[in-house]
Amino acid sequence: MSIIKIHSSLRDYEVHLSSVSNYLQELTCLEHKAFLVDENVWQYHANGILKVLPRTEMLLFPALEEKKTLEGAQDIYEYILGRSAKRNLTLVTIGGGILQDVTGFAASTLYRGINWIFIPTTLLAQADSCIGGKTSLNYKGYKNLIGTFYPPMAVWIDPCFLGTLQTQDFFSGLGEVIKLHIMGGEPKIQQILQEYDLICNKDAITLKSAIQTSLEIKGSYITDDEFDRGKRNMLNYGHCFGHALESVSNFYIPHGQAVIVGMILANHIASKRRILTKERCQFFEEKLLMPSLKTQMKPGYFQSDAIIEAMKKDKKRTGSGLVLVMINESDEMIRVDDLEEYEVRDALEVTGKKVIHHEKTN
Amino acid sequence: MSIIKIHSSLRDYEVHLSSVSNYLQELTCLEHKAFLVDENVWQYHANGILKVLPRTEMLLFPALEEKKTLEGAQDIYEYILGRSAKRNLTLVTIGGGILQDVTGFAASTLYRGINWIFIPTTLLAQADSCIGGKTSLNYKGYKNLIGTFYPPMAVWIDPCFLGTLQTQDFFSGLGEVIKLHIMGGEPKIQQILQEYDLICNKDAITLKSAIQTSLEIKGSYITDDEFDRGKRNMLNYGHCFGHALESVSNFYIPHGQAVIVGMILANHIASKRRILTKERCQFFEEKLLMPSLKTQMKPGYFQSDAIIEAMKKDKKRTGSGLVLVMINESDEMIRVDDLEEYEVRDALEVTGKKVIHHEKTN
Repeated sequence: MSIIKIHSSLRDYEVHLSSVSNYLQELTCLEHKAFLVDENVWQYHANGILKVLPRTEMLLFPALEEKKTLEGAQDIYEYILGRSAKRNLTLVTIGGGILQDVTGFAASTLYRGINWIFIPTTLLAQADSCIGGKTSLNYKGYKNLIGTFYPPMAVWIDPCFLGTLQTQDFFSGLGEVIKLHIMGGEPKIQQILQEYDLICNKDAITLKSAIQTSLEIKGSYITDDEFDRGKRNMLNYGHCFGHALESVSNFYIPHGQAVIVGMILANHIASKRRILTKERCQFFEEKLLMPSLKTQMKPGYFQSDAIIEAMKKDKKRTGSGLVLVMINESDEMIRVDDLEEYEVRDALEVTGKKVIHHEKTN
Repeated sequence: MSIIKIHSSLRDYEVHLSSVSNYLQELTCLEHKAFLVDENVWQYHANGILKVLPRTEMLLFPALEEKKTLEGAQDIYEYILGRSAKRNLTLVTIGGGILQDVTGFAASTLYRGINWIFIPTTLLAQADSCIGGKTSLNYKGYKNLIGTFYPPMAVWIDPCFLGTLQTQDFFSGLGEVIKLHIMGGEPKIQQILQEYDLICNKDAITLKSAIQTSLEIKGSYITDDEFDRGKRNMLNYGHCFGHALESVSNFYIPHGQAVIVGMILANHIASKRRILTKERCQFFEEKLLMPSLKTQMKPGYFQSDAIIEAMKKDKKRTGSGLVLVMINESDEMIRVDDLEEYEVRDALEVTGKKVIHHEKTN
């Protein structure tokens, strides 16, 4: 079993990479507990690893964006209150990012915070979102507008859940895994290149190692900047364009896939600005980014007016210019807030064509 | 000007005791700001100290319990979003505890936390609630069920606001001031005894000093236990019964007045348990607690079944017994969770009579 320790000013916590079987058994022995389980995950694992869960202390929750709202959080309050639970109840979430966001928000706000344990079941949640303590709700068309910082007391990662993940969701998670490995610098980039095929084939040992590396790299960014005022912002590599692409595609593009295209776009601009060589840009594109693109992209997603409009709405933008996080030739992350619209238009035109051509030839 | 520094794992912040006039002028110069002002406070000070506030960047908010809800928080989200505000907006709250609770919740959850400055205007908020970082919302009949820990960036206390406070509200605040002085031990008890008449006459200098002492004592309890898992719980002296009395009176009794009766009840039980002498119990009662009771109490408020029922619902109760915080003969705070119902019945009978008799003779 591997354990990663995460420091947080709210509470230090541990991420366990191991079979969750015995731990679930332990949790069922707690006096006051409630299990919030993703409906899909339950479907696949009700007779397997989740068999031990007490049906009377379990709420099945749909992993839908429209449930990631104040209304969804209220469903969770009601469920817990209906069980005359007390402040020392432990809430155990078993699911992906959506469940993490809404149950984490509910756990952080009920009684100003109850015990919370998270067992992530998607690659995105296991390799990325499970640490960092962000909880989020959508609000009236604004994605993730509302939220808190509230780390779980413990995270337990069991790769067994990845076996039943849909292909789209797997490749969405892969986007963040690749991003984090690139941010980890040359040795990690070489590592993922070597392991790439095994990862795509969902080889359990390789996946576990890639998840661990991803979390260690992310951990190094969040420890010094838990509340996202500086260094942590660099994790937005691929996200400045990524969020805009998700929005313009009306959330048809899965998050991690949008991040992949976002990295291609950011690299293009970095290369035009001469902070990344064309060769390095091409290397990332050909070896890691393009091969991981599995979502069908439409030319409409690359319309520059719509993308620029969406980028202007980015909640992390505080000045008047557009913001971009890029990587330079020395694998250092750089954030600029003077991105010009013509650079965006150029990047979208070139990249849009490439991405759509790539699909046709694959 | 006096400054009290408060340590918090989320952020350290300062409480300034001084005229807020120049500071308000400074705040109006911020590029992105919004002022949330208590309707009543505005009525009294619109042409005075609050004259500098820009009307176009100000929302008047009613200090009503029914606005201290998720709906009230949404009113604040909407107001801020309607001004196309960004994540670097500073929200300035000017009001009492209700405004602190609901605007603090909104500030802590919008974009996972925006800049927030609190200018408390009631004695309760100035001398007690403004530090500690608790935000609260009522939820479906449950008082303060939802909330976060989110300290303001700065607190600015100007006693000028106390001049326009209603008598009931003033004596509600006095309850917490007395509680904190008692918790501060013998020197602070002697201090408030000496200053009592001046405080009741709202002498500005004495009030400022009593507020400062109250905050310093509270500060010593919250610094080591910000998230209220241990020592901070002692601040609940007077609150175990106090919350129940508020609830049974359908919130007719103002909070701090209920805390005063709660201290009388807790002292009675402490004396019966022989951890406080009858003399000391009587001393607190005659010198500080009874004289500060200004709310008319009805015999119905002391019905033991209703009080016990309400105490069982206390959100801080995690075991099966009833919880009580008491003071002992050495001015040390003690928390027990084995309070027996017969002790509660006895205390209510004796104290109920005393309180109602006290009113009749005053």
